[in-house]
Amino acid sequence: MSIDEHRRPIAVTMGDPAGVGPEVTARAWAARREHDLPPFVAIGDIAAVDAVWDGPVARVGDLKDVGRIFAGALPVLHLEDSGPLTPGSPTAAGATCALHSLETGIGLTRNQASAALVTGSVSKHALHGIGYTHPGQTEFIAERCGVTATNAVMMLAGPSLRVVPLTVHIPLSDVSERLTTELIVAKARIVARGLRRDFGIDTPRIALAGMNPHAGENGQLGDEEDRIMRPAVAQLASEGVLIEGPVAADALFAPGIRDRYDALLCAYHDQALAPFKALHFHDGVNLTLGLPIIRTSPDHGTAFNIAGTGQADPGPTIAAIRMAAQMAAARERSCAPAK
Amino acid sequence: MSIDEHRRPIAVTMGDPAGVGPEVTARAWAARREHDLPPFVAIGDIAAVDAVWDGPVARVGDLKDVGRIFAGALPVLHLEDSGPLTPGSPTAAGATCALHSLETGIGLTRNQASAALVTGSVSKHALHGIGYTHPGQTEFIAERCGVTATNAVMMLAGPSLRVVPLTVHIPLSDVSERLTTELIVAKARIVARGLRRDFGIDTPRIALAGMNPHAGENGQLGDEEDRIMRPAVAQLASEGVLIEGPVAADALFAPGIRDRYDALLCAYHDQALAPFKALHFHDGVNLTLGLPIIRTSPDHGTAFNIAGTGQADPGPTIAAIRMAAQMAAARERSCAPAK
Repeated sequence: MSIDEHRRPIAVTMGDPAGVGPEVTARAWAARREHDLPPFVAIGDIAAVDAVWDGPVARVGDLKDVGRIFAGALPVLHLEDSGPLTPGSPTAAGATCALHSLETGIGLTRNQASAALVTGSVSKHALHGIGYTHPGQTEFIAERCGVTATNAVMMLAGPSLRVVPLTVHIPLSDVSERLTTELIVAKARIVARGLRRDFGIDTPRIALAGMNPHAGENGQLGDEEDRIMRPAVAQLASEGVLIEGPVAADALFAPGIRDRYDALLCAYHDQALAPFKALHFHDGVNLTLGLPIIRTSPDHGTAFNIAGTGQADPGPTIAAIRMAAQMAAARERSCAPAK
Repeated sequence: MSIDEHRRPIAVTMGDPAGVGPEVTARAWAARREHDLPPFVAIGDIAAVDAVWDGPVARVGDLKDVGRIFAGALPVLHLEDSGPLTPGSPTAAGATCALHSLETGIGLTRNQASAALVTGSVSKHALHGIGYTHPGQTEFIAERCGVTATNAVMMLAGPSLRVVPLTVHIPLSDVSERLTTELIVAKARIVARGLRRDFGIDTPRIALAGMNPHAGENGQLGDEEDRIMRPAVAQLASEGVLIEGPVAADALFAPGIRDRYDALLCAYHDQALAPFKALHFHDGVNLTLGLPIIRTSPDHGTAFNIAGTGQADPGPTIAAIRMAAQMAAARERSCAPAK
């Protein structure tokens, strides 16, 4: 047996069986050598893979078998038959399968049977139809891990840039009210800890983007920088966090500036995600810091419109699996007893 | 005489004599062959160039001489002695010189002695100290051209992307109130016309970015898309403007999406400028549409902290001069009588 066969695999949920999840997972497996992917197991309905892919697939019952199987076939932990399947057409049975896959993936990773969790895309609409009440997968994972949703911090990470939106799915006009000194401090602490523990960065450098244009231009273009942000930066600095800001957001994303920092904290969704996707649309990974487990996901939706057509790009899933493996290795090193 | 010598030159104001303007203008001239720059004349205090540059400089009195001189020396239209000069230390005399340079550049371009105006960076602080009351140079240029400030539309243009912030230097919390259907319609019309007249694009395609995350997600994350933006898009479409949106801003900036459009209209400053500078920090040009003259500028400030040290990058000035020349040529073609 090679070393790889002894490694704990990565758990990859395939998300909604009618979305692109099954095919991008299978195509990631097909590209395992090219991208040096570690052993992983796909969780969901094996029929969803068969419906969109002709390559070798093997059912596994025990995750210990994944390492041995992985070289020759895509290992699938089959959970349940999600009924008649048409790629692109979500069903209640499919949403139930997606939810069970998520629960299973969380459980296996919490039990350390898998080294990390990569979550495929689900349909919020289909999930809400079966009584799921969480806004997304992250909140569900946080709950199952005993972490409050505000302490589960969304980060987008690419080869050259990591960004964290401090507020996420709220109207732009609510940002000023929702962004508090306490929120910034709490999230920045989790980011600093995550960079150390999961990215192996001993002394992470963080920047905080101003909320207003030109970071408020000395209060002339808004007072949130002085009122909310500077007290947070002062508090964090007093705790030893290397943080600078508030920095004018447009300057912060310029090459040569953004490269000085290990993560950029942004005041709101588009301030973080628009520049991030401009740079890392194909290789960006969505991950969650602050959890007891490693969790990443490809940064795209179910793409029902192209499911089953072979057009879906497996790149984001490949990037999510690679990053999950790197983060798991970093956390293992950081948690190993000192010699 | 070559063809070049007959062309009207570009007028380049050097901005604050204590900033990086004089050196980046001189170094742009030094790179004129490499970058195929058209003849241009630097406007300001010739001593400011001498203070930071050893290359050949020639005073000109008449812009007709620029074409002949340009091959062998940087042509300078010397306006006035701005007093003892220390790069990095702005003075009232320097601000006065910067203002006179701007007035002269506008006048020469309005009179068609120069083909276009490129404005170097000024210090707003120093200008306000001598009684200048406009927020920036653009508003002054608009006034001198008889255009209301709201009809002078700021665009950032790079080799692969053009963005227009519909609101600019206002607090983020004021965006919802300031962004009106009328404003979007008025600015989009100017952008469509500018793309045709100054960029030679016969049927320009424009996208409007949503103000809220995910463009409001069907009203769940804000109502400005439905209330303000969709009526503007409908109005513009009825006038024959090819415009799509509101589009989720993060998706809009992804490669493959942004490339479908000739310009992206954004709701606020950082939504436009953060992704733009992430992609085009070194070759982005700031330009003004809706004026009777062509006006571009390098997209950076006076950089007093590095003035005179030789570190300033002439790239943005080179890009601004090249784009001004291209726009002037396009406008000349579009205004030529049909044969």
